Amino acid sequence: MEPTMLEAGLYLIPCQLSDGPLDGVLPAHNVEIVRGIQHFVVESLRSARRFLKKCDRNIDIDALTMHELNEHTDLTDTAAIEALLDPIGRGEAVGVISDAGCPAVADPGADLVAIAQRRGYKVVPLVGPSSILLSLMASGFNGQRFAFEGYLPVDGQARQARLKEMLRRIERERQTQIFIEAPYRNNQLITDLVQHLPSRLRLCVASDITGERQSIVTRTLAEWKHATLDYHKVPTIFLLYQ
Amino acid sequence: MEPTMLEAGLYLIPCQLSDGPLDGVLPAHNVEIVRGIQHFVVESLRSARRFLKKCDRNIDIDALTMHELNEHTDLTDTAAIEALLDPIGRGEAVGVISDAGCPAVADPGADLVAIAQRRGYKVVPLVGPSSILLSLMASGFNGQRFAFEGYLPVDGQARQARLKEMLRRIERERQTQIFIEAPYRNNQLITDLVQHLPSRLRLCVASDITGERQSIVTRTLAEWKHATLDYHKVPTIFLLYQ
Repeated sequence: MEPTMLEAGLYLIPCQLSDGPLDGVLPAHNVEIVRGIQHFVVESLRSARRFLKKCDRNIDIDALTMHELNEHTDLTDTAAIEALLDPIGRGEAVGVISDAGCPAVADPGADLVAIAQRRGYKVVPLVGPSSILLSLMASGFNGQRFAFEGYLPVDGQARQARLKEMLRRIERERQTQIFIEAPYRNNQLITDLVQHLPSRLRLCVASDITGERQSIVTRTLAEWKHATLDYHKVPTIFLLYQ
Repeated sequence: MEPTMLEAGLYLIPCQLSDGPLDGVLPAHNVEIVRGIQHFVVESLRSARRFLKKCDRNIDIDALTMHELNEHTDLTDTAAIEALLDPIGRGEAVGVISDAGCPAVADPGADLVAIAQRRGYKVVPLVGPSSILLSLMASGFNGQRFAFEGYLPVDGQARQARLKEMLRRIERERQTQIFIEAPYRNNQLITDLVQHLPSRLRLCVASDITGERQSIVTRTLAEWKHATLDYHKVPTIFLLYQ
């Protein structure tokens, strides 16, 4: 099949969060878009190649240009980063693929998008799985006001201060608080929340989202106090609300 | 084709944000899930019927049970709301469909999900389009920390106070601010932002997301000051960042 002729622009291509068939979490349209792109900016070459092969096993990966952009990239080398978008100036499409989930949301890519916006290029976000959005939907918490806070501070005092501020925003603003932790500290985080926050608060622990062992459980902190915690090293996201 | 046998639970089924083919924004898997469900809770019967027919034109809508849950529902009648989940207790699946986008996120459904969680039922969120997530991806703003604030206050003084607090959270917390407005006030909102916030801030205006006239444009407020604003009555979401 001939690849689709795409408008010039930056295409943000979500990737799976876990193994399993692509059509479990990605619209068929995304695969059509992927087939029409020759230039990619990816979080890691290895993951991106695997994803592209899964989109279309006949894809000729060697015919594509692929550049890595991740936490090791020297973002001060703006010329090199700007150059990643040059194909768009020539009327071509550039695709961004992160290792898991949606580019530029709790993932690299936002700097590149910012440059594309500054240049007035078209930016096209595609639909795909986001652990933030999926866990919020399934938590039963306020979806009219919410905040994603990224990682909580590791340090005792800064962590305490952040928890206190999160509590304030739950109570005064009815704002659902969403955050993550290094996976090997997941169980400890739950223990910390139980210890330092009012036991009436509800905590949603969402782990292995879209995976075979997906578990999204909302309980009060009083209930979590007596739960068996087996989230060690499992990708997990946390949500708090009253 | 025989419908899939689904595990008992509450399935959160996203819907399109605009017209066009389903496979542009929804994974094929969602349609399989829909085919396996007999009981639905929907934001409006009319939209839900149209969506279900689009999923499968052979679907026998009269054989399904469908109940409305929306802003007109009396949420104090907890017995009636709890009853919507009774099929799950009998080992069946219940599907939630809102008029556009993802149930329970800036849309009804969260109360029902909260009851399902309290009863210990399985809650399964499916992937679909969210104007919040898609606009954040394409804005070029910080995706490591962000907040969705819903509607800003309409009143002058409360609105000013909220804008000031948003500015504080952008500057001190590097938190992207996301919000919406009644569509007939979109242009006025942009004018207000230009008037009351520092001109160096960047505003992303994302309109008709996933639609034919999708436009996602990030500019400084200084630049927006001179822009022609034609967002009147177009579904639009706003993002602010430094």
